[in-house]
Amino acid sequence: MKIVIVGASGTIGKKVTEAVRGENEIITAGSKSGDLQVDITSTESIEAFYKQIGNFDALVSVTGSGYMGPFKSMTAKDFNIGLQSKLLGQVNLVLVGQHYVNAKGSFTLTSGILAQDPVIMASNLSTVNAAINSFAKAAAIELENGVRINAVSAGVVEDSPDYFPYFPGHIPVSMDKVANAYYKSVFGPLTGQVFEVW
Amino acid sequence: MKIVIVGASGTIGKKVTEAVRGENEIITAGSKSGDLQVDITSTESIEAFYKQIGNFDALVSVTGSGYMGPFKSMTAKDFNIGLQSKLLGQVNLVLVGQHYVNAKGSFTLTSGILAQDPVIMASNLSTVNAAINSFAKAAAIELENGVRINAVSAGVVEDSPDYFPYFPGHIPVSMDKVANAYYKSVFGPLTGQVFEVW
Repeated sequence: MKIVIVGASGTIGKKVTEAVRGENEIITAGSKSGDLQVDITSTESIEAFYKQIGNFDALVSVTGSGYMGPFKSMTAKDFNIGLQSKLLGQVNLVLVGQHYVNAKGSFTLTSGILAQDPVIMASNLSTVNAAINSFAKAAAIELENGVRINAVSAGVVEDSPDYFPYFPGHIPVSMDKVANAYYKSVFGPLTGQVFEVW
Repeated sequence: MKIVIVGASGTIGKKVTEAVRGENEIITAGSKSGDLQVDITSTESIEAFYKQIGNFDALVSVTGSGYMGPFKSMTAKDFNIGLQSKLLGQVNLVLVGQHYVNAKGSFTLTSGILAQDPVIMASNLSTVNAAINSFAKAAAIELENGVRINAVSAGVVEDSPDYFPYFPGHIPVSMDKVANAYYKSVFGPLTGQVFEVW
């Protein structure tokens, strides 16, 4: 199986890459690192990226940024950061990628617990994560040739202790559990699902 | 109470305007109609809009568009229509409006059933509606001075028969029930909620 992992060098991406490697052909990607580089905020960059890859069986996206900051001083420009990167960036990996993915292939996107369980300063990411979850649900009913799509929504992960102060009362989730959810999406049969890990 | 209704001339907006009028001061707004005009995709337009209004007690948004079309041919540009209009447009009414709303005032935004219950050709609106729901939940924990925010998520409404073919098996919801949900958000005590009407 040919598996593409965008954001492979990130905290979660590294573990996902290990988890799905097995005997598969892995192509790692990132904005600056990995086998290939891609700017997910640019359709041109995404098109060029898929042209280099050719057909593939699974695309795992563990990438995209959002805006963190107090609601009181937030502007539309700030808010649009998450909409254009973590949301539209991941969506566009699917919109373009649907024309390159093999039959019965899959897309796995990344959302996060903030969709249901907001914390202070993260309204942009709550919004974006919920959007990704429903995008996966909606795209699943239109993707053709048995192509699947799911989202993985993790809580704050144990390997990101710098984030713990922003998530009071949240219990950090194990990296193994998180990586396993991506594995389940890539190798399992489900589509249109949100795999919640918390 | 001074109540601003953006999208007051729409199918739902008209009923909401009637429902909340009572003895209140109503300011209707729209992109082209109403007492005041506002382009919700422009921060400058929203700023000018609130400056004309001055302080207010409730802002009800029943506005914003999204993209309808087959997933197979959808582009990032298409998808961004809903992100910039129904999503960021409504979000920005709150981001800017928080500096004009009176203490204990409220914002009521519009999402929709597609967040949970997608139909063909509407992946953009499924995404946007879910985003609005979680935005309301997240913004509620940061708005100050007792200012509240909720979203109303209605099913296909009985006054929009043109949409029925796109919603097979959906039971159209009564306009009174929908208008009542907006009333509940404006005059009730709740915040950070999604009022589902279906």
